[in-house]
Amino acid sequence: MRILRIETRSRAELVDVTARVREAVRASGVEDGLCVLYVPHTTAGICVNECADPDVARDILAALGRLVPDSGDYRHEEGNADAHVKAALVGSSLQLLVEKGMPKLGRWQGIFFCEFDGPRGGRELWLRVLQV
Amino acid sequence: MRILRIETRSRAELVDVTARVREAVRASGVEDGLCVLYVPHTTAGICVNECADPDVARDILAALGRLVPDSGDYRHEEGNADAHVKAALVGSSLQLLVEKGMPKLGRWQGIFFCEFDGPRGGRELWLRVLQV
Amino acid sequence: MRILRIETRSRAELVDVTARVREAVRASGVEDGLCVLYVPHTTAGICVNECADPDVARDILAALGRLVPDSGDYRHEEGNADAHVKAALVGSSLQLLVEKGMPKLGRWQGIFFCEFDGPRGGRELWLRVLQV
Repeated sequence: MRILRIETRSRAELVDVTARVREAVRASGVEDGLCVLYVPHTTAGICVNECADPDVARDILAALGRLVPDSGDYRHEEGNADAHVKAALVGSSLQLLVEKGMPKLGRWQGIFFCEFDGPRGGRELWLRVLQV
Repeated sequence: MRILRIETRSRAELVDVTARVREAVRASGVEDGLCVLYVPHTTAGICVNECADPDVARDILAALGRLVPDSGDYRHEEGNADAHVKAALVGSSLQLLVEKGMPKLGRWQGIFFCEFDGPRGGRELWLRVLQV
Repeated sequence: MRILRIETRSRAELVDVTARVREAVRASGVEDGLCVLYVPHTTAGICVNECADPDVARDILAALGRLVPDSGDYRHEEGNADAHVKAALVGSSLQLLVEKGMPKLGRWQGIFFCEFDGPRGGRELWLRVLQV
């Protein structure tokens, strides 16, 4: 298992980790298989989406913010209940196919670590590459 | 890796691909293992849900449409920002268990390719079956 | 494949299955690999989130309830259309990394079976542990 360490800079932020995931897959030496990504946090998630236009990431964050407002009728008292809900919606794990030593992504796809309760210095993305 | 090619007919549509996934798993010759499905697009997703009553798929699309309206306060200028958000909510990857050469689904479950920015002729669903 | 049988007690409920998943992974004898969890229902899902404060699970259910009301403009006539939508949002499958015979979870993470149309006596969570 490899750990990618991520520093986030805003309360809510989609961090493009595509290059780092690609590099970790290459470093694993696996030519053909599966790459499993896992977020070990409860107020962050992972998704794949368009990375060409940064407005897409902004729109995703804004839409999630409208669906699950920062403050509202929450019982959890740490002030980050919305972040837990967003993590549940976006999801904590993702798998990518690996071919010729590279994760196979669609033409416009990038991989985003989704911070919903930042900024935080100690975020992690766990990664494992399985040879098939 | 196998590629299922999918043609969609509406802007938003849940396309039942259960039979095609089943056939691809059978064709792989794997008896026992894991089937990984991956959508290489940024305005489409994949989910499992009820396929017996087509109203369920309609309700899912309608509910997503209410949550993330087609037009609104978006910055992405291609007119499909809502589709990117819906893809992030529904997800891009899915795994199924495989036994006796068949994907194991629950009694009422079907597999849906979720189009959010169609109609499009060139959609793909990537599929890989792993022997365990 | 192992089947965890789950009894739910409310219409909507997040059931903490962390200890049972941990036990099933240990019982599998796999030291190093991947644990695949799969929900074979269409009105239930699976997610990872905070289990230390039970208010988090309540907030997630309440937020989902506000996003997708129990009753509304649905066509599916069984009175559980909202549960199908929630299952599509939360997702039906999840994978965990396994090390030293244990699923690797983050410090605050627990695994929740998400009931959206209970109470039901016969829910299942399918689990498979792959040696890598």
